[in-house]
Amino acid sequence: MEKTGIHKKLMEVGTQLFAERGVNGVSIRELSLAAGTSISMISYHFGSKEGLYSAVLQEQFACFAEIHEIRRQISDPVEMIESYLRWTFQRHRNNPHLLRFYTSELTNPTAFFETLVAPVIDEVIVIMAEAVAQGQQQGKFRGDVDPANAALALAGMVNYFFLSLQATKKLISQSPEQDESLVRQYLEIFIRGIGV
Amino acid sequence: MEKTGIHKKLMEVGTQLFAERGVNGVSIRELSLAAGTSISMISYHFGSKEGLYSAVLQEQFACFAEIHEIRRQISDPVEMIESYLRWTFQRHRNNPHLLRFYTSELTNPTAFFETLVAPVIDEVIVIMAEAVAQGQQQGKFRGDVDPANAALALAGMVNYFFLSLQATKKLISQSPEQDESLVRQYLEIFIRGIGV
Repeated sequence: MEKTGIHKKLMEVGTQLFAERGVNGVSIRELSLAAGTSISMISYHFGSKEGLYSAVLQEQFACFAEIHEIRRQISDPVEMIESYLRWTFQRHRNNPHLLRFYTSELTNPTAFFETLVAPVIDEVIVIMAEAVAQGQQQGKFRGDVDPANAALALAGMVNYFFLSLQATKKLISQSPEQDESLVRQYLEIFIRGIGV
Repeated sequence: MEKTGIHKKLMEVGTQLFAERGVNGVSIRELSLAAGTSISMISYHFGSKEGLYSAVLQEQFACFAEIHEIRRQISDPVEMIESYLRWTFQRHRNNPHLLRFYTSELTNPTAFFETLVAPVIDEVIVIMAEAVAQGQQQGKFRGDVDPANAALALAGMVNYFFLSLQATKKLISQSPEQDESLVRQYLEIFIRGIGV
């Protein structure tokens, strides 16, 4: 295997095993065996097991930065909220591992939480709180709504749908074809919820 | 240590270690050492490591059954939604480990998920969906709202507040003294959100 091939394979194997068992639940030996390479190759490419974990974590959360581009393109607060919902559905649909790293770091933070996870989650909440505040200034949303609490409630609605997928199979249609309908349902609950 | 003392100690140690590392991240030897007892005592009281894990899981999720008593006492759908929010805040405040078992089982289900976890989560969603449907029949909520999706959105708002605590320390006041204010904020967003 060439160098870039080994790097890619270690990222794949690391993503899978860390998602299932966390950074402490996987040994560097298991990682090297699963990737068909040696422990020294992990050291060479990532420094250590923790180095590989932090590379995987950065890759998992890289998609959060897209919120800046969405914000640049959209000025209307209601459209911004709609785009946030659609983008969040897409993030989870495109990456079935994201919620595992997300909930694992939030409930049992590693040494990388404060630098790699909390800042990107905070950025999204801050930008969505700004959209709510902007809608308040425009007289579209009630002035007594707390923008940060409302942004967190919005994030909760959509992220929880994915978090609870395994439990709600019998209760709710989970087909990706329903996503656009769910975006509209959440949007309507939220916009009416904070509306004047 | 007398038998009941060992049983209790194993439950405490199991709760702590399983919450941090999951059932696969802890060995029966680590459990016995941490509890100051022997592996044979774990076998005697719980059959196996998995037996101890399932006992811990049942204890963690026992509080979900309280929803039946709340439903029996409250007939008004808006009051029911308010009580659900307050009860969920209390569940998380009373048990800092609950979210770890909850998210771990939802993202990496064990053999016990289908029998011990999914049914109790489903029960709460079904009961809250019934409250939404009742409000629709009484003309309080819009008829085009999907009750199960709305119930899930409600659960998402409140559970996500606790899930994201570690990330939102700088953004949002997290003092338990704010809980009643948050109950009212979520209630207002949700009731206006599904209202006529």
